[in-house]
Amino acid sequence: MADDRLELLRAALADAEVDALLVGPSADLRYLVGYHALPLERLTMLVVPVSGPAALVVPELEAPRAVDSGAGRHVDIVTFTETDDPFALVAAHLAATADGGDDGGGDDGRVGPHGRLAVNDRLWASFLLSLQARLPDRDWVAGSEVMRALRLRKSAAEIDALREVGAAIDRVHEQVPSLLRAGRTEAEVGRDIAELILEEHDEVNFVIVASGPNGASPHHETGDRTLAAGDAVVVDIGGTRNGYCSDMTRNYVVGHAPEGYDELHRVLEEAQRLAVEAVRPGVTAASIDRVARDHLDAHGYGDYFVHRTGHGIGVEEHEEPWIVAGNELLLESGMAFSVEPGIYVPDHYGARIEDIVVVTDDGVENLNRRPHGIIVAG
Amino acid sequence: MADDRLELLRAALADAEVDALLVGPSADLRYLVGYHALPLERLTMLVVPVSGPAALVVPELEAPRAVDSGAGRHVDIVTFTETDDPFALVAAHLAATADGGDDGGGDDGRVGPHGRLAVNDRLWASFLLSLQARLPDRDWVAGSEVMRALRLRKSAAEIDALREVGAAIDRVHEQVPSLLRAGRTEAEVGRDIAELILEEHDEVNFVIVASGPNGASPHHETGDRTLAAGDAVVVDIGGTRNGYCSDMTRNYVVGHAPEGYDELHRVLEEAQRLAVEAVRPGVTAASIDRVARDHLDAHGYGDYFVHRTGHGIGVEEHEEPWIVAGNELLLESGMAFSVEPGIYVPDHYGARIEDIVVVTDDGVENLNRRPHGIIVAG
Repeated sequence: MADDRLELLRAALADAEVDALLVGPSADLRYLVGYHALPLERLTMLVVPVSGPAALVVPELEAPRAVDSGAGRHVDIVTFTETDDPFALVAAHLAATADGGDDGGGDDGRVGPHGRLAVNDRLWASFLLSLQARLPDRDWVAGSEVMRALRLRKSAAEIDALREVGAAIDRVHEQVPSLLRAGRTEAEVGRDIAELILEEHDEVNFVIVASGPNGASPHHETGDRTLAAGDAVVVDIGGTRNGYCSDMTRNYVVGHAPEGYDELHRVLEEAQRLAVEAVRPGVTAASIDRVARDHLDAHGYGDYFVHRTGHGIGVEEHEEPWIVAGNELLLESGMAFSVEPGIYVPDHYGARIEDIVVVTDDGVENLNRRPHGIIVAG
Repeated sequence: MADDRLELLRAALADAEVDALLVGPSADLRYLVGYHALPLERLTMLVVPVSGPAALVVPELEAPRAVDSGAGRHVDIVTFTETDDPFALVAAHLAATADGGDDGGGDDGRVGPHGRLAVNDRLWASFLLSLQARLPDRDWVAGSEVMRALRLRKSAAEIDALREVGAAIDRVHEQVPSLLRAGRTEAEVGRDIAELILEEHDEVNFVIVASGPNGASPHHETGDRTLAAGDAVVVDIGGTRNGYCSDMTRNYVVGHAPEGYDELHRVLEEAQRLAVEAVRPGVTAASIDRVARDHLDAHGYGDYFVHRTGHGIGVEEHEEPWIVAGNELLLESGMAFSVEPGIYVPDHYGARIEDIVVVTDDGVENLNRRPHGIIVAG
């Protein structure tokens, strides 16, 4: 698969008129060559020129991990010691593979045909600054400009992986009611949920247990607050299984719902359902956001919906496409993203319903199957 | 403390002739204003001009977390919605605080006096590229060029925090022998160790359980390998407690040591001891590396020591100073770093002994107190 991906990447580089993509430890690196590198101060960098062989520059002490990853099947692994300059190795590989370019005049050899280089979006700025100093007179672009062509539409195998991890997080949510009881803290519940996630995933990505007024902060994680009867609790959790991410939110109540919550939740359920039903090829990402927002607006909750409706998901928890106002991207078969409208009432409570969906040839497939209604626990 | 740090930062910016430091989610951000921001695709950015007030630009839905962090005591919190351009807010704050500068002619207002801006080292490259596009005609430098002045020498309070977390990881290592038994996998042992780390820390940073030949890969984490009698096992673990990191390595054997390991370990113990004893103000970082390396060289193990002798530690697991050949930095009182020589024999085993030390006014304080010898488990 990785060889195909490198070929697709070269095609994307050619289309974008970019001479090479430089990729540090990141989901992009895992996606391209299967190497899960540690994000360390020593440079690890995949160099993929638009033509010619790719190279993976790694610190000598990471070489065993790089070799074990199997990345060597797809690229040459080039190691450096503690006192070598890894940026010189990157520049040398670019110079050696520069194709038909002019002599840039620097000691690093030729500039490629377009004089443009891409770096993966999440590369550390300090590395980009070192590259810019070492390779002057280039234009630099964000790697997503070329990686988008590969990652935005999932293959059948990727959709299978997303289905599997979606079912896995369904099974975790199924067990959440047994953990939510008055007298327990969010942090205690969160730790138990993390263990359940690990039983179904390779990694825990995040655990949000936001009870009572904490639910009104969309990105509250877990805190010391003790659950009490009549609390609404937003549980938003995700992990990674076989390299693909889950992300799913349901709303629980301890014993009974607080005042006003049933009505609010009914409106939210409808907004989420309508947004999912609107998903199909050929409509814009913004239009899905619009459907959810219009419904909440119409019922007086618009001001309490303070975030976009969703985000893409795959080898990263958050990736393109962004389901947000202004994004005129046309949805295509194979795109996968969350649909997660929320209502946040400051000082009282919050609610969010989130499923992952995939655009199909003629509509949408929902990868999370648990019911959407309020779940009574405790 | 944070107000002092912002003042120290402004002084460092003035010294370095840098107009402002721009800081995304990172240890730098926590260090400067106490905000532990999530690394998300929506920009979060602290803007600290060399003069004038600092601002923290955050997405609206992160605002509750930013406010809860107390960062608002030190800086103005500026929020943006899903459809605003956060880079425009950053540029506007820079323009509003630009001091005595020329008119840069751009629509973002004035360039500061030096035309140089710093970004935190770990900022995502995609954000740096957006900033460079929005604020052309500036020189960009790595944030460590200015943050070094603050973070390299720890304060008394920081050293206390490092002492505490050092004692915490000592207590974890004390319990490791009970977990290492023939028949268990590295992954099982690693999971148990992670739980013990969490009992003593707020977060687990990493768990390396490298048994038998896996020990020869310095950055092996944990795998499916099953422990057997006669295995050497490198256990290198760390966590964060009250914002400061631990990092400590000891070598265990299951039942008995493999052939040759006792002798190798004696040489390693001596190399580590000599290196620690060489630490004092006024010597170079490289000289500490040299002491460990010379001893291993003299005993025929030099080729098996494939990494530097140590790294700084504090609010990050790995930070300056780097204890490595070529680093002529003079050690000063308050610097904290690991001393961790290792010997890696491919296909057989590895060994590494690691303590955290702090440079004192006249020598060194060791923050890990467990014995250095081979620990027999199982």
